[in-house]
Amino acid sequence: MWGGRYAEGPSAIMAEINASIGFDRKMWRQDVLGSLAHARMLAQVGIISADDLSAIERGLEQIGQEIAAGKFAFDTTLEDIHLNIEARLTERIGEAGKRLHTGRSRNDQVATDVRLWVRDAMDGLAAQIEDCMRAFLGVAAEHTGTLMPGFTHLQPAQPTTLGHHMMAYVEMLSRDLSRMRDARARLNECPLGAAALCGTGFPIDRHATAAALGFDGPTRNSLDSVASRDFALEFLSVCAICATHLSRFAEELVIWTNPSFGFVKLGDGMTTGSSIMPQKRNPDAAELVRGKTGRINGALVGLLTVMKGLALTYAKDMQEDKEGVFDAAESLALCLAATAAMLRDMKPNLKRMAEAAGAGFSTATDLADWLVRELKMPFRDAHHVTGRLVAHAEAMGVDLSGLTMNEMQAVEPRIHAGVFGVLSPAASAASRTSFGGTAPANVARMVTYWQEKLA
Amino acid sequence: MWGGRYAEGPSAIMAEINASIGFDRKMWRQDVLGSLAHARMLAQVGIISADDLSAIERGLEQIGQEIAAGKFAFDTTLEDIHLNIEARLTERIGEAGKRLHTGRSRNDQVATDVRLWVRDAMDGLAAQIEDCMRAFLGVAAEHTGTLMPGFTHLQPAQPTTLGHHMMAYVEMLSRDLSRMRDARARLNECPLGAAALCGTGFPIDRHATAAALGFDGPTRNSLDSVASRDFALEFLSVCAICATHLSRFAEELVIWTNPSFGFVKLGDGMTTGSSIMPQKRNPDAAELVRGKTGRINGALVGLLTVMKGLALTYAKDMQEDKEGVFDAAESLALCLAATAAMLRDMKPNLKRMAEAAGAGFSTATDLADWLVRELKMPFRDAHHVTGRLVAHAEAMGVDLSGLTMNEMQAVEPRIHAGVFGVLSPAASAASRTSFGGTAPANVARMVTYWQEKLA
Amino acid sequence: MWGGRYAEGPSAIMAEINASIGFDRKMWRQDVLGSLAHARMLAQVGIISADDLSAIERGLEQIGQEIAAGKFAFDTTLEDIHLNIEARLTERIGEAGKRLHTGRSRNDQVATDVRLWVRDAMDGLAAQIEDCMRAFLGVAAEHTGTLMPGFTHLQPAQPTTLGHHMMAYVEMLSRDLSRMRDARARLNECPLGAAALCGTGFPIDRHATAAALGFDGPTRNSLDSVASRDFALEFLSVCAICATHLSRFAEELVIWTNPSFGFVKLGDGMTTGSSIMPQKRNPDAAELVRGKTGRINGALVGLLTVMKGLALTYAKDMQEDKEGVFDAAESLALCLAATAAMLRDMKPNLKRMAEAAGAGFSTATDLADWLVRELKMPFRDAHHVTGRLVAHAEAMGVDLSGLTMNEMQAVEPRIHAGVFGVLSPAASAASRTSFGGTAPANVARMVTYWQEKLA
Amino acid sequence: MWGGRYAEGPSAIMAEINASIGFDRKMWRQDVLGSLAHARMLAQVGIISADDLSAIERGLEQIGQEIAAGKFAFDTTLEDIHLNIEARLTERIGEAGKRLHTGRSRNDQVATDVRLWVRDAMDGLAAQIEDCMRAFLGVAAEHTGTLMPGFTHLQPAQPTTLGHHMMAYVEMLSRDLSRMRDARARLNECPLGAAALCGTGFPIDRHATAAALGFDGPTRNSLDSVASRDFALEFLSVCAICATHLSRFAEELVIWTNPSFGFVKLGDGMTTGSSIMPQKRNPDAAELVRGKTGRINGALVGLLTVMKGLALTYAKDMQEDKEGVFDAAESLALCLAATAAMLRDMKPNLKRMAEAAGAGFSTATDLADWLVRELKMPFRDAHHVTGRLVAHAEAMGVDLSGLTMNEMQAVEPRIHAGVFGVLSPAASAASRTSFGGTAPANVARMVTYWQEKLA
Repeated sequence: MWGGRYAEGPSAIMAEINASIGFDRKMWRQDVLGSLAHARMLAQVGIISADDLSAIERGLEQIGQEIAAGKFAFDTTLEDIHLNIEARLTERIGEAGKRLHTGRSRNDQVATDVRLWVRDAMDGLAAQIEDCMRAFLGVAAEHTGTLMPGFTHLQPAQPTTLGHHMMAYVEMLSRDLSRMRDARARLNECPLGAAALCGTGFPIDRHATAAALGFDGPTRNSLDSVASRDFALEFLSVCAICATHLSRFAEELVIWTNPSFGFVKLGDGMTTGSSIMPQKRNPDAAELVRGKTGRINGALVGLLTVMKGLALTYAKDMQEDKEGVFDAAESLALCLAATAAMLRDMKPNLKRMAEAAGAGFSTATDLADWLVRELKMPFRDAHHVTGRLVAHAEAMGVDLSGLTMNEMQAVEPRIHAGVFGVLSPAASAASRTSFGGTAPANVARMVTYWQEKLA
Repeated sequence: MWGGRYAEGPSAIMAEINASIGFDRKMWRQDVLGSLAHARMLAQVGIISADDLSAIERGLEQIGQEIAAGKFAFDTTLEDIHLNIEARLTERIGEAGKRLHTGRSRNDQVATDVRLWVRDAMDGLAAQIEDCMRAFLGVAAEHTGTLMPGFTHLQPAQPTTLGHHMMAYVEMLSRDLSRMRDARARLNECPLGAAALCGTGFPIDRHATAAALGFDGPTRNSLDSVASRDFALEFLSVCAICATHLSRFAEELVIWTNPSFGFVKLGDGMTTGSSIMPQKRNPDAAELVRGKTGRINGALVGLLTVMKGLALTYAKDMQEDKEGVFDAAESLALCLAATAAMLRDMKPNLKRMAEAAGAGFSTATDLADWLVRELKMPFRDAHHVTGRLVAHAEAMGVDLSGLTMNEMQAVEPRIHAGVFGVLSPAASAASRTSFGGTAPANVARMVTYWQEKLA
Repeated sequence: MWGGRYAEGPSAIMAEINASIGFDRKMWRQDVLGSLAHARMLAQVGIISADDLSAIERGLEQIGQEIAAGKFAFDTTLEDIHLNIEARLTERIGEAGKRLHTGRSRNDQVATDVRLWVRDAMDGLAAQIEDCMRAFLGVAAEHTGTLMPGFTHLQPAQPTTLGHHMMAYVEMLSRDLSRMRDARARLNECPLGAAALCGTGFPIDRHATAAALGFDGPTRNSLDSVASRDFALEFLSVCAICATHLSRFAEELVIWTNPSFGFVKLGDGMTTGSSIMPQKRNPDAAELVRGKTGRINGALVGLLTVMKGLALTYAKDMQEDKEGVFDAAESLALCLAATAAMLRDMKPNLKRMAEAAGAGFSTATDLADWLVRELKMPFRDAHHVTGRLVAHAEAMGVDLSGLTMNEMQAVEPRIHAGVFGVLSPAASAASRTSFGGTAPANVARMVTYWQEKLA
Repeated sequence: MWGGRYAEGPSAIMAEINASIGFDRKMWRQDVLGSLAHARMLAQVGIISADDLSAIERGLEQIGQEIAAGKFAFDTTLEDIHLNIEARLTERIGEAGKRLHTGRSRNDQVATDVRLWVRDAMDGLAAQIEDCMRAFLGVAAEHTGTLMPGFTHLQPAQPTTLGHHMMAYVEMLSRDLSRMRDARARLNECPLGAAALCGTGFPIDRHATAAALGFDGPTRNSLDSVASRDFALEFLSVCAICATHLSRFAEELVIWTNPSFGFVKLGDGMTTGSSIMPQKRNPDAAELVRGKTGRINGALVGLLTVMKGLALTYAKDMQEDKEGVFDAAESLALCLAATAAMLRDMKPNLKRMAEAAGAGFSTATDLADWLVRELKMPFRDAHHVTGRLVAHAEAMGVDLSGLTMNEMQAVEPRIHAGVFGVLSPAASAASRTSFGGTAPANVARMVTYWQEKLA
């Protein structure tokens, strides 16, 4: 395989540690497309003949069909997908096959294939993120006014609505989408033609191959082209951040489906039972979405570790880029699909959420704000008065609205009956009309805003 | 501090684990600016009086001066920078100080302060990346034709030039810069006014505070505003990728300054000696640049771990965002400065690089390409013939150009004397004229391209 | 500082990136102890005189007092704690101070100091882990029979007791303790005398210095001695695993203090309020314990990144070992202290836990097991029958014990009234008497077992 | 599968995200062994009949043969290896198969299987670490006196020997081995019988199953048994540290095989060529050993992320433990095998190493030490004098031994001709006789020490 210089082949352990065909075959489509673009360019500039091109095109097409049909015999001794396809091509079409590698090297070939694969993954994931945003929007649109507790520190803080809560995730995912698009734009330069590392003396046309493969243009430095994997690192970090967002909603689903909360119920299709406890209805999909953050973070750390301190240009360490990238892309795809499916499946329990929205003195801030507005107290003093009223109510075992006017006036004599107008969760939520606030009318507007953006 | 409900203060361990004033004081400027913007808006919409505003402005200005002068007495029992400043303000100006917190909460306040701090860091780092690009460009401009070996697997692969090598880093850093800018644009929405989590019923003008603080506009969802830290995660991943790039050049400097290589020499100002070995001249700065990748990766992993599976909205875990972000920003700033300084300091040894450029049969590819062009051999066959010639030369202890015509023709009879024209490193480098290739004329064009872009 | 070879001092950026005195001063005690042991050995073998030793002892003692009293003027241009102390020593005692560094180097000196620091940290943390185990044991001893739901997937699975739950953490922490002890034993070899990297020709006695510093003996290979930091990596991984355990209990506290659960209440001393929501009582300490896992994981990743691919022996990258190790040790100390404090502070709500223990058909397994035992059904069939009974009860809105005999017999005719004996949570818990099972008598035995082990 | 309560099966995405049979089939042997031990115990205590046991034994044996022969039809709808085997068992032997799951659950079953798998992996890796130590010892034994430069900061520091350098790795690996053994001892408690989470009321004998499976005894707390994965975290950290050690030697091989160094040569069997550069001989195996550190670190981070903040007991997130553990074990096995193979294959170039050992004023420390010993100069002054001599030699372009007596005495008049005795690399190495030092006699003793320990 390495030509005339090697007296012996690789040792067994060398062959085993070195072979990538077990995983890089996943890039076969990209490899065929890249070779086609390269061959057409070679013919165009006169490096190979039109006949050679025809043979190569025919050969590659047939190989693609063989692989797609599961009939291609992958050969581990040929190391990787690139050599497997090239060897098969020469087997099929002879001499012309041996001319395909003119003016390129495996270094630029693999850099091109990986970029194409990642770009495809980015496009797929971007579409899935949009779908997941639509799933959140679907719940939000139905529940702009459905009361639930807003938590900080997982303690009831102020009443909010299920719709507003869903829209928080729409915002997060919209940034994930934006990150994915920026990463795609930055990736979209074509390394093909950088050859081994220095470019080539053959009169190749890199702009032509770049265009044929949908890139914005060729990369500008051949060493960088074969040595860099920051596009993969960036992709992994975008995936990790998105997975982190999904893990947060997954955690909420796990908590919300616990019977003490009972905020939502997942159906038979999105839960599993137990091999021993017949009553179980476990939110496994949510747990797996939460857990899969781990492997995506791990893939990011893995590649950061690999690339740290690597002298230029290509080093074999970089072969370790692929499995992590493949796995992260597929894991995130699963997480997005499962999240969207859970959103479309889950049944909110409006009664439980409304009850919880009113518990824990959740309208105490409304009371403090009322003191500021009505009695012109400085906020810090109003906060203090409210704290004392909460302490009193807690001691009496009642809600704030359960305190009598006497009890209130004992703490602050100027309080009057108008205060009761701000103590209900619904009033609280409706009052928060500042831009981006929880008021149902706000939420409805944001739902419309995003529905239009995603249309 | 928590108003009228608490009977006792925090236990000692609670106070210790909870206090952030030890590190969040670093955000004092941002906190003052945020409070000024908030106060002016409160006055504008009539929530506080013009007199209160004047008092607040004056008070905050004086507090800023105290802190800048190192005269501010930070109080750990006041937990954080926000409460420290607010308490001091009330101490100074009385009642008006207590009105400042109307319509906001620490949750949106801290989210705003961190964004402002990160945005400042991004701007500083972007300028430093540009400076570092200029430092690489400076070396490249001088050395577009300075021969050196191009390595793959750290083995000589093909001759390249020092200029081309430097330009590879210009490309990497340009993508780091682009990532930093994209991250900044995405971060640039203002959470102020999201209040605790649900927004507020006070008639605040979030567009006004956003504009006053240089944001593109207010965030659209109050829960998301206080619960999300993806801007920090993205910042950390941008830093980690950039640090990884710098670690690669640092590794090269460590190898290049080893006497067996001797490619470059660093001056007294950029090396250190030893406490025991009087001859030492160690590239400590390069090693530290390489090593500091670790802490930046660690900060990224740290925050990813923190945010994984956190139920909305704000949780105290998120206080852990700051130290890692501060440290990563400062570490990357050091690494960029040290890299630029080493570039401006280092003296390339042209002779050693040129010798190495010709070693290791580095023009074998040129020979193979010549066989393709001149003898119309398929590339794979040319590769094989060249391999045999290399094996022969290696056995004879000579370079490819040291083989006789007879020896060459014994392997491939059609070889003729024209072949010697492609076997010198200089000819090899000059021949690689494909776009982005190593030919000195190409490199010179790219230097101009980037000089103009950075101008 | 580097002796006679350097014409100029370091550049500003070099000095800034290189200086470690900002953080390694934390090791001053270790540095003084190491120097004392070294000096005494030098005198013992006759390399320095008794007078020199006296001067050095006196000088180091005084320097220790200066530092302890905060009166030592650390000098950044002297880079690190080692050079700061040595320079001050020579300033104080003259010639003799210059002899101290005979037969050692900063490389073995710093390796010794870090090991001593880590060993002290290990001892402190081991004591804290034991204390935390005692805190869990304290709750367990009081609550061997206090019913609470046992969860899998955060769904009620089977009734258990608070005591049994606490004892699960005792087991986890006992393994953390065992890991810490193993790591300490492995670390406990002394690198002092490895000198720069190759040992020395001076007739030093490494066994003497090792013994004086409490090590089991000297390290066996000088290159390894100055090049390795696996003791620090192991320490960090032990810390990360322990922190992960604590994060799990912290998560439970966050969930248990939410009012929908209400399993436990934390007092004023272990919660915080809100700057805007007067009713808040947030479990900040628990959240911080959970969140600090991030920085400890980050420190581990940081040092793994640093050490990856470092050629032997010492490289300056390794200076990056300290801050992460210091921070991880201090963070874990805080987390252990906070966890123990929360355990001693928290008030379980027995009523809420008991109610939850019976909810969600938590005794369904007991019913299935009864069918196996009483009716000799294969377990899989019994599981199926129970599943149908649960579905029926759920549809009727009752518990399993709320089904009538007729309803039960409609599903499985052989069921008789004896079944009701296994359907209460208390009966369920009491029945699980297998070794390690949840039965209160078991738990009491385990409490005794651990109390004796920790005594 | 979940018995009588579920009306519908899982949705497609649920099935896809949930299924683990794709990877947990790797544990089939462990699952069969665990089931056999459980069944024998059930029969022993009278829970199942002798006939049932015979049927189960026969059935499991046949299933084992089917799987080993690649004839077992794995069914994704049966989720995992446990349900696949149990379903097949019941298909084969009927009723008796349904009794196997009595008194256990998948939670304790999977915890047992994973521990058994990890224990097997630990034993295999421990044997490989020993083999790798033998490979380092083999080189060391041949080269106790082979001079090479000892580096700090990758700069020549002092002459050492190849043998001493190899022995540094023997020390590192010996600690890796010790860590692996400690981890194994800690893991070796049997969770079987913890059942779902609370243990069971069936009179099972956990000591019997523990003994049958080679465990030291049963775990002591059922909740901990199904909820904990610290044994896997510890295993991963042990692997990561060992991989880090191997990555350091791999880096050295990459540098040493570069022609500017030329310290060692790897044979055809342990290098690869290039698809385009016919002269290449790349140290791919070394690069892959270095790079695979990344995926092992990634697996560790992945599982740390998964376990962070998980409420007890079992959660489906924990299914994510397996792939990372499997991959880390297999990757480390590859790295150890490849490292041992490279050690046995590599040919040191004694001439190149000896030349480099003398370059870079590597005996400057010896000169300084001579000044201390002979002229009684304080070390710091000797260091300074030597620095000036190095500067002078550097300016003259000669080695230290190339300075004339006059030149030396110009710097320090008391220097006499005796100094030349310490300036050769061989003399330098031989002089470092302190315990653990580089002197060949020391190294030979350490080789014997380790050969005996490993015998």
